[in-house]
Amino acid sequence: MLRSHTCGELRITHVGQTVTISGWVQGIRDKGSLLWIDLRDRYGITQVTIETENAAKELVETARTLGREFVISVTGKVNERYSKSDKIPTGDIEISPEKITVLNPAITPPFTIEDETDGGDDIRMKYRYLDLRRNPVRRNLELRHRLAIETRLFLDKLSFLEVETPVLIKSTPEGARDFVVPSRMNQGEFYALPQSPQTFKQLLMVGGFDRYYQIVKCFRDEDLRADRQPEFTQIDCEMAFVEQEDILNTFEGLVRHLFKSVKNVDIPELSRMTYADAMKYYGNDKPDIRFEMKFIELNDVVKGKEFKVFNDAGLVVGICAKGAAEYTRKQLDELTEFVKKPQIGATGLVYARYNADGTIKSSVDKFYNEEELKKWAAAFNAQPGDLMLILAGEEHKTRKALSELRLEMGTRLGLRDKNTFACHWVIDFPLLEYSEETSRWHAMHHPFTSPKPEDIALLETDPGKVRANAYDMVINGVEVGGGSIRIFNKELQAKMFGLLGFTKEEAQAQFGFLMNAFEFGAPPHGGIAFGFDRLCSLFGGVDVIRDFIAFPKNNSGRDVMIDSPSPISDVQLNELAIALKK
Amino acid sequence: MLRSHTCGELRITHVGQTVTISGWVQGIRDKGSLLWIDLRDRYGITQVTIETENAAKELVETARTLGREFVISVTGKVNERYSKSDKIPTGDIEISPEKITVLNPAITPPFTIEDETDGGDDIRMKYRYLDLRRNPVRRNLELRHRLAIETRLFLDKLSFLEVETPVLIKSTPEGARDFVVPSRMNQGEFYALPQSPQTFKQLLMVGGFDRYYQIVKCFRDEDLRADRQPEFTQIDCEMAFVEQEDILNTFEGLVRHLFKSVKNVDIPELSRMTYADAMKYYGNDKPDIRFEMKFIELNDVVKGKEFKVFNDAGLVVGICAKGAAEYTRKQLDELTEFVKKPQIGATGLVYARYNADGTIKSSVDKFYNEEELKKWAAAFNAQPGDLMLILAGEEHKTRKALSELRLEMGTRLGLRDKNTFACHWVIDFPLLEYSEETSRWHAMHHPFTSPKPEDIALLETDPGKVRANAYDMVINGVEVGGGSIRIFNKELQAKMFGLLGFTKEEAQAQFGFLMNAFEFGAPPHGGIAFGFDRLCSLFGGVDVIRDFIAFPKNNSGRDVMIDSPSPISDVQLNELAIALKK
Repeated sequence: MLRSHTCGELRITHVGQTVTISGWVQGIRDKGSLLWIDLRDRYGITQVTIETENAAKELVETARTLGREFVISVTGKVNERYSKSDKIPTGDIEISPEKITVLNPAITPPFTIEDETDGGDDIRMKYRYLDLRRNPVRRNLELRHRLAIETRLFLDKLSFLEVETPVLIKSTPEGARDFVVPSRMNQGEFYALPQSPQTFKQLLMVGGFDRYYQIVKCFRDEDLRADRQPEFTQIDCEMAFVEQEDILNTFEGLVRHLFKSVKNVDIPELSRMTYADAMKYYGNDKPDIRFEMKFIELNDVVKGKEFKVFNDAGLVVGICAKGAAEYTRKQLDELTEFVKKPQIGATGLVYARYNADGTIKSSVDKFYNEEELKKWAAAFNAQPGDLMLILAGEEHKTRKALSELRLEMGTRLGLRDKNTFACHWVIDFPLLEYSEETSRWHAMHHPFTSPKPEDIALLETDPGKVRANAYDMVINGVEVGGGSIRIFNKELQAKMFGLLGFTKEEAQAQFGFLMNAFEFGAPPHGGIAFGFDRLCSLFGGVDVIRDFIAFPKNNSGRDVMIDSPSPISDVQLNELAIALKK
Repeated sequence: MLRSHTCGELRITHVGQTVTISGWVQGIRDKGSLLWIDLRDRYGITQVTIETENAAKELVETARTLGREFVISVTGKVNERYSKSDKIPTGDIEISPEKITVLNPAITPPFTIEDETDGGDDIRMKYRYLDLRRNPVRRNLELRHRLAIETRLFLDKLSFLEVETPVLIKSTPEGARDFVVPSRMNQGEFYALPQSPQTFKQLLMVGGFDRYYQIVKCFRDEDLRADRQPEFTQIDCEMAFVEQEDILNTFEGLVRHLFKSVKNVDIPELSRMTYADAMKYYGNDKPDIRFEMKFIELNDVVKGKEFKVFNDAGLVVGICAKGAAEYTRKQLDELTEFVKKPQIGATGLVYARYNADGTIKSSVDKFYNEEELKKWAAAFNAQPGDLMLILAGEEHKTRKALSELRLEMGTRLGLRDKNTFACHWVIDFPLLEYSEETSRWHAMHHPFTSPKPEDIALLETDPGKVRANAYDMVINGVEVGGGSIRIFNKELQAKMFGLLGFTKEEAQAQFGFLMNAFEFGAPPHGGIAFGFDRLCSLFGGVDVIRDFIAFPKNNSGRDVMIDSPSPISDVQLNELAIALKK
C-alpha cells in the first residue's frame, strides 16, 4: 500500500495515528535542527517535520537528498502542530516520519510548479504534464469534469439518452473544411471527421430516439485563431415532438442547473431578444447584457446642422456612459484611438459631456449649441454626470464599431465582472445570409434549419427576409450554444439545398440518406449544441479555452509535447495508396 | 405543444383527462363501426379508438388515410377500455380522439418495424434509422446509456476525474495499424487517431491527476472480423500511487456496481487465476468458469501401453463431461468432427463412457482394459454417468483444441446460460511473447507494462519467463477488460524498448516525451481499459457488439447508410498536398 491517506485529508482528529502519505516534494526548508518537507498531491499539501537530532540518521540523510518534485512516500505519526497554519486545510497537523521512501527522483523542472509560475506559454505547453501539476490548471479540469457530470445527470433525469455517433463519417462541402482519413480497405476513398453529429442526431430522431445527447469531440480544419482548436467538444442535443419553446425551456433549465450545482449561483429565467433587436440595440448578435448602455439612434436629432460628417452618415448612433462625464481629455483621446483601430474601423468619435453643473460640452460645439445638445441628452435619457459617445457612418459598420466601443466602456467602467452572469436567448435569426464573395445564399445556422412557417412564402420572393426557428444562448456576451428547429420534410429540405446552390444530384449524393429518411415518417424535431470548452472557460472566469483542455494544440495545430503531426512511413503511405505531393 | 403525455404514460388514473400524444402508427384495424390505431413512441404504445358512426366525418376520413409509420398527433379523452389488455402498461385505457393531425406521412418501410422483423442484416444497416425504431435495438442502446452513466457515477464518487485526451495524435509503429489524418497546416505530416489514450493517461498521472477515467472512442485500421469495428469505445482508467491490488479492488467494485445497478444481479467477490493456471486448466487465457470441467493431464496415466498416438504425444489431456455417458454414437461422432475442423486442429478424439452400471467403455478398448480405464476415471474423478473426452498431441495446440471442445461441451450441456455471470481475474501474464515471424520479442500487453520486480533480473537471461503485473477481467469467457501496472522509470522503459527491437533513436523519436516525463517525478501508476461495446453486449446477453452501436460499420469498414468512405474532391487533395496512387 502506497498511501493510507491523501495529502489533503489529515486533520486534528487524526493526531496520534500512524499514516502513510505519498506525493511530490513541493519544498524543503532545512534549519539544521529542524527540517520541513511540504508534500503535495492532487488533494492538498501536508507538512512533514523532522527533528534532525532525534530522528534516525538514515532518515535525515534521505531527507537531505530530496529535491523539488521528487516523488516520495512518508510513513509516520500525525502530530498537532506547534504553530498552526490557517492557509491550508491540513494546517493543524504535521507528520513526524518514521520512514521516507524515494519512489522516484526528479530532475529540476523547467519552470516552477506554483500557482504563479515563471514559465512562459511555449515551455508550459512542451511540458504540459508538469503544467498540469499546477493548482489553477488542475482546478480548471476539475471544473470541466464537474460540468460534464452535472450535464449528464440533468439530461438523464429528463430521459435523454446518450448515444455515441460515429467519428469516421463522410466529407461534405457545406460548412468548414473537413479533416479526412484515407481508407486502406476502400482505396481512393476517405472518411471525414465530424464537424458535428448533426445528421446522425437527426436520424436518431427519425429512429424514434426522442431525446438524445452526447458530449462529443468535433473537428474543423480551419486556420486557427488564438481561441480555436482543431478538435473541440460539444454538448450536443436533439429532441423530437417539440417546438422551439420546449427546447428553450429545457436547455435554459440545464444551464441554470449547472450554475446552481457547480457554482451555487442562482440564474433567473432567461430573457429573450430577437436578432433584429440585438443588432439594433447592441450592434451584435451576442450582446453582453451584464450592463445596459443600449444604442440610441440619432439621425432625427443630429442631422440638418452644418456638421457634414453626421449629415452624410447613413447612421448616427451613440451610447450613454453613466457617470463618465469626468473622463479626462486623455481618456477621451484613448477612446478615439480605440475606435479608429483598423479592426474597429470608425473614422472618429464624437462625445458630449453632461457635466454635474448641468452644462453640456461636446467635441462638436462648433456645430451644436447648448440647446441642441440638450436634445441629444434627452434622446439618450442622459443625466448630469453622464458621457455621450457617438459614431457615424455606414449603418452596418457603424453598429459593429459602436458595439466594440460599448464593450470597451463596459470594461472600463467595471460593468463586466467575471463573477456576474447574464444569460439570455437571442432568437429569430435570419435563415440565410448573402455572400458577395460566392454570389449566393449561405445558411446562417446550417442547411437543416427550418424557416418559420409564416415566412416560408418569402423563400421564393425575398430569401433574406426569411426568419428561422433558430436560437443562440448568450452568456456575458459569449455565444455558448446555438440550435434550431429542423426541417423534417423532404421537399422543403430539397428546396433549401436548391437555394444554397446545390444541384439536385449534389444534394442527393451528399444528403440523400437524410432526405430519404424524411420520407419514412420523420417527427418534428430540433436541438442545440453548446461549445463545452467555451462553457468551461466561462464558468472558470477565464477567457482562454486552451486552459480548459488537458492537451491542447497550438495555433499551428501542433501538439508540441508529443511533436505531432509528424511524417509517416512509406509503408503506411503505400498501404493507403496515397503519395505526398512535392 | 405537440404532446402532453408520451405513448407509454397513460393509466387508469388519467381517465377523463384530455391529452395530446404523438408518435408513429404501429398498426390500424378498421372494423367499419370501430377503428383502432396503435400509436407508438419510444416509451410505449397507446390505443386510439374511433367509433366511426359517432365521430366527426373529417376525423374518420383522416384516420382512414393513415398508414404504418405515419407520424401523427392525437388529441382526445382518456377512456377506460371495455376489454383491457395486460400485455402493455397502457392496456387499461384508450384515447377517444377529438383531433388527429398528420405531422408527416410515411412511405412503406422496406422491412416491418416489429420486434421480430422480416428485414435481413444488409437492408437493416442501410436503413439503420428504421431499424433503430425496433424495440430490441433501442433497448440495447438504452442499456448502453445506463451502463455509461452508472460507470461515471461510480467513478466520480471515488474521485476519478473524467479528462478528455486528444483524438488527433501521433502515429507509432508499435501495435495495430493506425488511421492517419493528413495535416493541411503542416503539409507532408499526419496525425493519427488513437488506438487508446495510453500515453496521455500516463502523462496525466505524471501530472498529478491521480485518478483518471474516460469513456472514449478508439480506432484501429485492421482487417475486420465479424466482431470488430474500426472505431470502438473503451472505459479507460488510470490511478497513481497504487499497486495491482488497489486496481483489482477498485474495478471489481465497478463491475459489481454495474451488475447491481443495471441488472440487479449480485456478483460475489471475483476469484483470481494466474495465467499459468488458466492455460493449464482451461487451455485459454480467458476461461469461461460458469462451469468447471477442468483439464486433467493424463501423460502419467495413459502412456506406456501399445497406443502409439498417446505414447508419441507431447501431451495427453482430457475433460470429464458430467452426466454425458449416455451420448449416442452420433453425438460422439459430431464431437470428433468438431475437434477435427481445421480451426480446431485435433487429429482425433478419444472417449470413455463411465456407464451407470459401473462399466467403462472407451474408443480405445483395444489398448486399455477395464482396470486401466478405472485409473483414467480416478484421474478424472469421474462418476458413473460421466463421459471422458481426451485429446493428444503437441502441448500448446492440444490445449487450445481441448479448450474449444470444453466450450462446446459446456454449450451442449446447457452450462453457459447467458443470464448467469461468472466474473474473475486472470493475473500474472507473461511480459513478452516471442514471434517466430518477426524473430523478436513482442509486448504481450503493451510496451509500458511493468515486469514484476522479482522477475526483472530475468529480462537479461530469460525474457520469456518474466511475468508482468498485468491482469484481465474475464466474464463468461470473454475478456472485458485488461490492464497493468506501468513502468515509471526511464531506464527500465528504455530497456523495454530495446528488448522490443527499438533502436535508441527510434525509442526517443516516438516515445521520448514519455521517457522524459518519467525524469520529472513520475509516480507509481497503473490502470485498466474495458471494451465498452463488448461489455454492453455481455450485459445484453447478445454476442454481436454491432447490435450495441447506434451506427456501426460493416466488415469492409463501410457505413452503408451514409455511403462512407467516399471520394473527396481534387481541391481537398490539393490543399492536403497528397495524391492518389493509381
